[in-house]
Amino acid sequence: MKIRVAVVGGTGYTGFELVTLLLHHPKVELTEITSQSYAGQPISMVFPALQETCSLVCAQMDLTRLVDRADCLFVALPHKTAMEVVAPLVRAGKRVVDLSADFRFRSPEIYEKWYQEHTAKDFLAEAVYGLPELHGDKIRTANLVGNPGCYPTGVILAAAPLLAGGVVDPDSLIADCKSGVSGAGRAPTLTTHFCEANEGFTAYKVGEHRHTPEIEQELSTIAKRQIKVVFTPHLVPMSRGILTTLYANLSRTVSEDEVRGLYQEAYERAVFVRVLQQGHLPSTLYVRGTNFCDIGWRIERRTGRIIVISAIDNLTRGAAGQAICNMNLMFGFDEAEGLRLRAWQP
Amino acid sequence: MKIRVAVVGGTGYTGFELVTLLLHHPKVELTEITSQSYAGQPISMVFPALQETCSLVCAQMDLTRLVDRADCLFVALPHKTAMEVVAPLVRAGKRVVDLSADFRFRSPEIYEKWYQEHTAKDFLAEAVYGLPELHGDKIRTANLVGNPGCYPTGVILAAAPLLAGGVVDPDSLIADCKSGVSGAGRAPTLTTHFCEANEGFTAYKVGEHRHTPEIEQELSTIAKRQIKVVFTPHLVPMSRGILTTLYANLSRTVSEDEVRGLYQEAYERAVFVRVLQQGHLPSTLYVRGTNFCDIGWRIERRTGRIIVISAIDNLTRGAAGQAICNMNLMFGFDEAEGLRLRAWQP
Amino acid sequence: MKIRVAVVGGTGYTGFELVTLLLHHPKVELTEITSQSYAGQPISMVFPALQETCSLVCAQMDLTRLVDRADCLFVALPHKTAMEVVAPLVRAGKRVVDLSADFRFRSPEIYEKWYQEHTAKDFLAEAVYGLPELHGDKIRTANLVGNPGCYPTGVILAAAPLLAGGVVDPDSLIADCKSGVSGAGRAPTLTTHFCEANEGFTAYKVGEHRHTPEIEQELSTIAKRQIKVVFTPHLVPMSRGILTTLYANLSRTVSEDEVRGLYQEAYERAVFVRVLQQGHLPSTLYVRGTNFCDIGWRIERRTGRIIVISAIDNLTRGAAGQAICNMNLMFGFDEAEGLRLRAWQP
Amino acid sequence: MKIRVAVVGGTGYTGFELVTLLLHHPKVELTEITSQSYAGQPISMVFPALQETCSLVCAQMDLTRLVDRADCLFVALPHKTAMEVVAPLVRAGKRVVDLSADFRFRSPEIYEKWYQEHTAKDFLAEAVYGLPELHGDKIRTANLVGNPGCYPTGVILAAAPLLAGGVVDPDSLIADCKSGVSGAGRAPTLTTHFCEANEGFTAYKVGEHRHTPEIEQELSTIAKRQIKVVFTPHLVPMSRGILTTLYANLSRTVSEDEVRGLYQEAYERAVFVRVLQQGHLPSTLYVRGTNFCDIGWRIERRTGRIIVISAIDNLTRGAAGQAICNMNLMFGFDEAEGLRLRAWQP
Repeated sequence: MKIRVAVVGGTGYTGFELVTLLLHHPKVELTEITSQSYAGQPISMVFPALQETCSLVCAQMDLTRLVDRADCLFVALPHKTAMEVVAPLVRAGKRVVDLSADFRFRSPEIYEKWYQEHTAKDFLAEAVYGLPELHGDKIRTANLVGNPGCYPTGVILAAAPLLAGGVVDPDSLIADCKSGVSGAGRAPTLTTHFCEANEGFTAYKVGEHRHTPEIEQELSTIAKRQIKVVFTPHLVPMSRGILTTLYANLSRTVSEDEVRGLYQEAYERAVFVRVLQQGHLPSTLYVRGTNFCDIGWRIERRTGRIIVISAIDNLTRGAAGQAICNMNLMFGFDEAEGLRLRAWQP
Repeated sequence: MKIRVAVVGGTGYTGFELVTLLLHHPKVELTEITSQSYAGQPISMVFPALQETCSLVCAQMDLTRLVDRADCLFVALPHKTAMEVVAPLVRAGKRVVDLSADFRFRSPEIYEKWYQEHTAKDFLAEAVYGLPELHGDKIRTANLVGNPGCYPTGVILAAAPLLAGGVVDPDSLIADCKSGVSGAGRAPTLTTHFCEANEGFTAYKVGEHRHTPEIEQELSTIAKRQIKVVFTPHLVPMSRGILTTLYANLSRTVSEDEVRGLYQEAYERAVFVRVLQQGHLPSTLYVRGTNFCDIGWRIERRTGRIIVISAIDNLTRGAAGQAICNMNLMFGFDEAEGLRLRAWQP
Repeated sequence: MKIRVAVVGGTGYTGFELVTLLLHHPKVELTEITSQSYAGQPISMVFPALQETCSLVCAQMDLTRLVDRADCLFVALPHKTAMEVVAPLVRAGKRVVDLSADFRFRSPEIYEKWYQEHTAKDFLAEAVYGLPELHGDKIRTANLVGNPGCYPTGVILAAAPLLAGGVVDPDSLIADCKSGVSGAGRAPTLTTHFCEANEGFTAYKVGEHRHTPEIEQELSTIAKRQIKVVFTPHLVPMSRGILTTLYANLSRTVSEDEVRGLYQEAYERAVFVRVLQQGHLPSTLYVRGTNFCDIGWRIERRTGRIIVISAIDNLTRGAAGQAICNMNLMFGFDEAEGLRLRAWQP
Repeated sequence: MKIRVAVVGGTGYTGFELVTLLLHHPKVELTEITSQSYAGQPISMVFPALQETCSLVCAQMDLTRLVDRADCLFVALPHKTAMEVVAPLVRAGKRVVDLSADFRFRSPEIYEKWYQEHTAKDFLAEAVYGLPELHGDKIRTANLVGNPGCYPTGVILAAAPLLAGGVVDPDSLIADCKSGVSGAGRAPTLTTHFCEANEGFTAYKVGEHRHTPEIEQELSTIAKRQIKVVFTPHLVPMSRGILTTLYANLSRTVSEDEVRGLYQEAYERAVFVRVLQQGHLPSTLYVRGTNFCDIGWRIERRTGRIIVISAIDNLTRGAAGQAICNMNLMFGFDEAEGLRLRAWQP
């Protein structure tokens, strides 16, 4: 027995990732893909890779039609547009995973400070932040999941066990993150032009990236007090992947074993977190195409710091894969259904 | 009911591709991976991407043990070494797909002219050239399949329908081929150094690449006379993919429809060839991670030529995927079993 | 004594290359850069690489002002727009190197067949095709030079000595060309998006690229009869460089020495052509950032063909460097003035 | 009047950069290139880019010959080997810029702790750390300059003005650095294999990279007390460039103007540091091929931190360009002689 699934906004990179994952998901029938730019065109014209694989035609977004054709909907629209679509779908009894930022925040004030006016505040209370390792139980019964941002996924998974274990100063966190170009979306811009990105490594939105409050919301809950995080995103000349280098001041002397214990306990039942062996460090190459988050670290006694490094695939674990994991939980499927993915290498 | 499969020489790029494909194949139990360089090490140490996915430890190659542990063997060893392993395995009643050049040639003379002495000539008569679109019936009953080279796969599939249809001059074929760097193998060399390959597009082995006689063997059979082909390989600064640009002189005036008819007929039952619509051209991006060969063309009336372009993933369709397709045929599985692969993009 | 030079349309990649070359040219004072998109902005805002190096502010294009401020003008505007600017500048007694296609053709019919209506036909007769190795003498006295296209530069230099020497069948030429992404310009498009170009090797405009008639015009003159050339451009995932692989049928048996003699004689006095030693082949890596065209070949007796390979930097030899070489000739400077460039590697 | 210059160890990437820069330096005659691996071969065979540009043949290293042929020597040998060559050259009255780590440390203890035994300790006292912005006066009279490491160059230039100005907590410095692959050298390794580096962003030698004590030596001098720095290097899939993201805790409230004042004062006379305008951030693309270090920053009041970002070309400013700048100072040439380099873009 399969559920019927729609992808709303299916022609960006996240949309494509959702579509290809859903087409191979044994419990899913993909019934609808909507696209404003490509309505009326077969998805296999938009992405020729899908020729002879998917015969769906992109549809104009139509709420009535969506309600009619799907039990579960993935909304991959820009902020603001998303909330206008999500609210009526949830009201109509549908289960929704929203990949925008619109339902990630418990506090409307924070959302409105960093984004814009929120016109569907009523839903914030019931929406669940879709990081399965932190909120698995709530996700299982949720009708609306706010799927985490790509950067927050890597940062939160790296930091959570240390904060929960109380071994680092919560005010000392610095997350230096590096993302492949697909994180900037499929719309052509000068920044994503091959000749500008190639050999052009750079930081951007330093001190003002909107993923900051999202990281802070989740880590503050774990730290049990309001904390602030320094977060610096960078653009890497590669297509996929995020590497996070997280710095924290140790609040006391800890052993390698103690730290390892914290991570192992935190992710004991986590299907998609790999705590690396001592001496091993993550690489974006090792998680490409998969839903894994790899985590390694190094305690630096010289300076009293710990450096934690995590790697994810920004489009899989950082977006579409995590969204499908959330769907699996919401519908009572095995958490890893459709997500035991082949690693992409080289 | 699963068959037991071994990969002999599993730590190159082709080996890794075989391993990840076999791990996801529903009819296969991967029982053994051998490696000279990494014997004794878990495969997940050689390829950290396989952590928590594959617990096999690389074994030293041992014929007795292989015979004992596998029904089907993929041999991914260098030329010459391969024949020494393949012969005893076939003699022991095993079914083997050999990915080296050692069993691709019907004529030992041609092999010995382009490679070296052949020490297992007895097996050449029974070995089948493993291009399913051409030799599917023979592959089904074969004990030994010589898996095609990466370049020949793309060239032969592009050229075959034209030669079979008699619409081109068989002496006019020129195959200008471009391969990603993984085609050069995983061993570090100056040629594959990032800083040399990046921005360094070049041709190599012009007029002397060993895939030439392989292309000629198959196309001569189709043309029903001995033909010679100009074949020029190039190295592209990308990890995966081969694009073939094939030039041929038209032997008479042909219409677009006639040419389309030839390709459609030739690949009517081919699961893994996509004949593109008029005006569309293949890209390596659209076949990445899949077993498809995409084919498009353009008739150029100005010059009386036809230009056929094909794209494959060199490690999937050009090596491991095709090898598994051959296994599927040999064991009576669905040709596409384990090969309905998710497209890798971006 | 320096000449005053203006770059009209200076904010594309060719414009930037012109500007950086001219800034380092000992006989040039760069007095003006015009730009429609960036008028009013310092060039060092458009290209931060020029900070503390160039203080010019992009100006709106103004013919009177240009006539007033420059002795020599490089016009790097799109086709059609170019001719409207070039004509009045030449009429005003200025010497112009036009980098569009508008003044490359001797025959207005051919231009109009492949491009559009020509509104400055009167100038076609006096315009000189700016390939110094072929037309050096005429360039020296020209007021208007039509600077060659990037692809034609690599193809013509590779083919000319063979045609002049009468050793190949003029009707057999096939030019398979591969260009870095900068050849597609700086305007953001889906084609030039990092995530689409990276790992996406493809052919484009097969049989219909507008550089075809340009190649044919020059090679027909050398062959002393009208010839047609098959020309197939491809896009390579790298920023710079064009590699041309040229195929021709030998019209008779030739020795390596004879072919070498033809190339050496043809380029005896050519400062910017390097005829490679036997066994050596060009790479785009070896000409990056320079004005060189490297040429190597291989006679393939098996098939009676010769394969000639040339490499250029598409922005230097294929555009701005060649344009400045033309200026050097027009103003009686040393041909290599300002063009003894440091090779960019890695 | 030119000085005679030799490059000892000229066939790595730093060697090539030295050679191409020296060939274009108006005050230099390049008389000798030594190479262990390529002795006897023309440098234009090792680097075909140098064909028709440099006719030198690589020589076996011979101290007598070097003393005879050069006034100034650049030693680009591995650690340990370097000191054995440098000492006799300086003793023979030559002026030497050593690009290894052997003469960067004032304290032999620190060198021996991080590297190995030092066998030329006598020279440490007279050797000058070759960062012109910090030690210009001493460099002018030095006979032996220890040329800075690539990472330290970017980190020290970013941090120095803040420490000198006393506006940051000296114990809070974290340098998260990202380098192109050429920083790993030209010798082929699995790490630098195209298919491993491409799409494989990773950190390495976390907490143990040997550039750490070099950074600490220089910054401690400025801070006037011993400080420790967290330094994390990463490998970026690009050929050239280092971006440094430096984090520091502000020790008091500072204004943008105050910080700008510190940088402007520190680099008032620095020809090769560009302090970017407010709101602008460095990119490796903007310094490619040049000797510039670009510096920008952002004061983050939310967290009481300052984030300083610097970009250099690791082979130019981070190695060969800086070495030549040191030579310019040592020989009384204009600091920028031969270093007004054309920006490489795209």
